Amino acid sequence: MTDEATRRRASMNATFAGRFAAARDRLGPLVLGADPHAPLLGAWGLGDDADGLERFADIVVEAAAGTAGAIKPQSAFFERHGWRGIRALTRLVGEARSAGILVVLDVKRGDVGSTNEAYAQAYLGPGAAIRSDAITVHPYLGLAAMGSYVDRAHDAGGCLFVVTRSSNPEGRPIQGAITGRGSCVAQQVLGDIGAINARLAPGRIGPVGAVIGVAAGASELDLAAASALFLVPGVGAQGTTPGDVARMFEACPGRVLPSASRSLLAAGPDPAALKGAVASLNAEFRAALRLVCSGTG
Amino acid sequence: MTDEATRRRASMNATFAGRFAAARDRLGPLVLGADPHAPLLGAWGLGDDADGLERFADIVVEAAAGTAGAIKPQSAFFERHGWRGIRALTRLVGEARSAGILVVLDVKRGDVGSTNEAYAQAYLGPGAAIRSDAITVHPYLGLAAMGSYVDRAHDAGGCLFVVTRSSNPEGRPIQGAITGRGSCVAQQVLGDIGAINARLAPGRIGPVGAVIGVAAGASELDLAAASALFLVPGVGAQGTTPGDVARMFEACPGRVLPSASRSLLAAGPDPAALKGAVASLNAEFRAALRLVCSGTG
Repeated sequence: MTDEATRRRASMNATFAGRFAAARDRLGPLVLGADPHAPLLGAWGLGDDADGLERFADIVVEAAAGTAGAIKPQSAFFERHGWRGIRALTRLVGEARSAGILVVLDVKRGDVGSTNEAYAQAYLGPGAAIRSDAITVHPYLGLAAMGSYVDRAHDAGGCLFVVTRSSNPEGRPIQGAITGRGSCVAQQVLGDIGAINARLAPGRIGPVGAVIGVAAGASELDLAAASALFLVPGVGAQGTTPGDVARMFEACPGRVLPSASRSLLAAGPDPAALKGAVASLNAEFRAALRLVCSGTG
Repeated sequence: MTDEATRRRASMNATFAGRFAAARDRLGPLVLGADPHAPLLGAWGLGDDADGLERFADIVVEAAAGTAGAIKPQSAFFERHGWRGIRALTRLVGEARSAGILVVLDVKRGDVGSTNEAYAQAYLGPGAAIRSDAITVHPYLGLAAMGSYVDRAHDAGGCLFVVTRSSNPEGRPIQGAITGRGSCVAQQVLGDIGAINARLAPGRIGPVGAVIGVAAGASELDLAAASALFLVPGVGAQGTTPGDVARMFEACPGRVLPSASRSLLAAGPDPAALKGAVASLNAEFRAALRLVCSGTG
């Protein structure tokens, strides 16, 4: 590589999109969903308490290291055990990042003004209490109110995944409502994401991504135009296959972060068995996303 | 009171609406917003750290006792200091409830399926890690997906406040979008709230409330029909007066929980001064809500 190419590569890797691309090329696009719900803790022989969460954290970080490019802890299952649960989450996130695993913290926060600034300080950028590489947020109070998250994510080489279209049918009435611009709410959110990304990262994948569930009708969204990464949760558990994901994102297969939790965690608690499940599904996704399109986004 | 009346009263008080009505009649409708943002901690001579939050908790609970019927801690400002901040929040919530103050925890959570069940277990009902009387939730994934919260709130005599219409202009595009039923999203959320309340508490105020910001155009919402309580945040700080609130809720003045934070906390850290500010604004609200209508909702 020339010096210029090296510099450009280093600069790309400093963005979340660049770091994800490197992980995807090395291991695959799969995100390991870390959802320590009560039945899972029981099935793994762990207590349904903070100690159980601490053990869960050890196991999933060990399993993810070297097999998953990213991990997605679901905050709810840690909040359920109060501040001790959050302490376990904090350790999980820190150790995962130390092991070179991208952390997408699924918190789905969203408020207005200085409250968003506080949430952003909690989870993004230097000095954050639970510093993550990316978090999920709600758009109901307006994407334009999310400036604090966007700025901190962009400055820190992080990413903000905005809940845009869910796979659950209960989400249709709001997400399918028609806005003043004549598009559905989900498309308008996607358009707003694209506008932010075009401003902050012209010609590249920007720091604002979208959470998109695989569901009928979602193909009406103009996914490629948003210059965004797509977090696609619930793969496996809800009957969604890698092929379904590949078909939905055929215009931009390299931008997809499919996330699976239950279907993978069922292989635990043996870390080696978990690693096998992650590696196997990662291979399926690499194959499926290439089958549709050989590009990388 | 007859035995029957006593029984009915006791039963009413077991619901959040009943407990709020008792507090409103005794002290007034005001909710003390507990937002320990960094500049406030500094102004109060407290550290911008978990110890500062612990001291903040002591002060606001002392100030609220006997003057505010309810307190609304904003989770973001505690999450900002990680698990130690959540530990301070946990103590604040527990001590406020022990002092007979209703706790509306402003967490704005919202997800799907078992994740919502975990959030509900974290904050509502017996055994919750941070047991609150009420919490706030987001509707973007569909009110129909919020059953776990509704059930737990209803069973525990709690309340679920659904973010419905915000006062910030950035919220308009989504909240004003037109749904398949021909109403705007905010009105559809309100209608869904009304349907749940009619099922769970026919003829009474139900366990699902709405967060409604005071803003131009909000009067187009059919507030009274939802049989719901209304949490109205940001009174004072954003130039909203008790008179504005009274005009907007003239059809159901007894159902309003106006919340003020900055305009009250500016009187601190002296608890006596805070008590004075809360009592004074409570008196203003009692007068304003009566000026418009002498009923209690």
